Amino acid sequence: MTGKFISLEGGEGAGKSSAIKVIQNWLEQQGIDYVLTREPGGTPMAEEIRKLVLSTRDEAVAPNTELLLVFASRVQHLSEKILPAMAQGKWVISDRFVDSSYVYQGIARGIDESIIDGLVATFLKGQLPDKTLLLDVPVEIGMRRVQTRGETNRLDGESLLFHEKVRHGFLKRAAQDAARFAVIDASQSIESVEQQIITQLNQLIVEPSA
Amino acid sequence: MTGKFISLEGGEGAGKSSAIKVIQNWLEQQGIDYVLTREPGGTPMAEEIRKLVLSTRDEAVAPNTELLLVFASRVQHLSEKILPAMAQGKWVISDRFVDSSYVYQGIARGIDESIIDGLVATFLKGQLPDKTLLLDVPVEIGMRRVQTRGETNRLDGESLLFHEKVRHGFLKRAAQDAARFAVIDASQSIESVEQQIITQLNQLIVEPSA
Ligand SMILES: Nc1ncnc2c1ncn2[C@@H]1O[C@H](COP(=O)(O)OP(=O)(O)OP(=O)(O)O)[C@@H](O)[C@H]1O
Ligand SMILES: Nc1ncnc2c1ncn2[C@@H]1O[C@H](COP(=O)(O)OP(=O)(O)OP(=O)(O)O)[C@@H](O)[C@H]1O
Ligand SMILES: [Mg+2]
Ligand SMILES: [Mg+2]
Repeated sequence: MTGKFISLEGGEGAGKSSAIKVIQNWLEQQGIDYVLTREPGGTPMAEEIRKLVLSTRDEAVAPNTELLLVFASRVQHLSEKILPAMAQGKWVISDRFVDSSYVYQGIARGIDESIIDGLVATFLKGQLPDKTLLLDVPVEIGMRRVQTRGETNRLDGESLLFHEKVRHGFLKRAAQDAARFAVIDASQSIESVEQQIITQLNQLIVEPSA
Repeated sequence: MTGKFISLEGGEGAGKSSAIKVIQNWLEQQGIDYVLTREPGGTPMAEEIRKLVLSTRDEAVAPNTELLLVFASRVQHLSEKILPAMAQGKWVISDRFVDSSYVYQGIARGIDESIIDGLVATFLKGQLPDKTLLLDVPVEIGMRRVQTRGETNRLDGESLLFHEKVRHGFLKRAAQDAARFAVIDASQSIESVEQQIITQLNQLIVEPSA
């Protein structure tokens, strides 16, 4: 039986890493084999591409250069890690996947949705996650969590506006594909978030595999 | 006035590097400002992507990963080096450009022409070279030239067949876009090849810029 593919999405500090720990515990209890992974990255070559994308440099980087690099790493991740694991019956849990491209390359880099749609159609061929958990949280709360974690953060007007756009972008994606997305109210307590996630996982396990 | 953009294409040992020296001499004589460049690569970031593509690794590389990486480097090269130089009136001479993707990713990696057409339409938006000089030479002669240059070469049946497919692939591209391509008979003497190239350059200089 083919394993399920779950992606976690959301802005910074929403609780994706915390959610992955909840999922991991649940999978262990169920005795389901799984793979935890992340994007951009997930294979040695895809991680090299991640480094190229994230490193700062003097040279200006064209938005489409970044988009194509992110999709190169995604294609590699999908074909060399995600699909082989699923074929072995393993569940794959990925910290971010294609929706982050729509939101970050779309909003921060100003790339049209239709261009990303074209890459998805050609290079992912419908290989979307079975379920995408969107950790949704008001920007102020996410920012506060990141700061509590001990990271410096300027939190100026510009970054607030940017994070608002990111939150709105993810909610729009979820509305466009309501069957795949589950929006988790991540402003709640850790116990409540955990319960919302487990409800989704219990639903997923009874659905027939594609 | 916008500068012209010329690409050199052809199999290994066809004479691309030699042709670039001929073009460089001619440009110097004409007093035309120019930039010599190459693909994959051409900017620091694009050269980093080139290294990623060309390095050998244990991990299998999906054909589409390689294609997307090559196009990432091309978009960067075009937007950060080729177009700015042309806008300053400089001529740009590139050792390989998009036709090498059709031939190498197409033949060696088995990628459909239509997929490459899609990337060209979306990401190059018609920014093809003004003129592409295809250095065409029978495979045996190209191989012999590379060997004379002092490089080892197995020249087994498999590599012969591969190089035949590459030659055929370039000639097909030239037939499909006869206005842009000039096929240079590179089996001739260096003097004859030089004369063929200069004839093309003299034609190009009288054409109005796009
Ligand atoms: N529901 C919650 N209530 C309170 N604190 C939380 C909650 N969920 C997570 N946190 C805390 O908030 C911080 C950020 O959470 P986490 O690292 O899981 O977010 P993330 O989405 O993975 O962030 P990043 O985008 O930086 O990877 C952590 O310190 C975590 O312990
Ligand atoms: N018309 C010609 N007649 C004889 N020898 C030639 C001719 N053109 C080039 N050569 C020689 O053949 C060798 C290969 O030429 P060159 O390096 O220009 O090819 P290339 O297409 O750039 O090869 P590569 O694909 O390896 O970059 C060189 O030693 C060069 O001097
Ligand atoms: Mg995290
Ligand atoms: Mg050469």
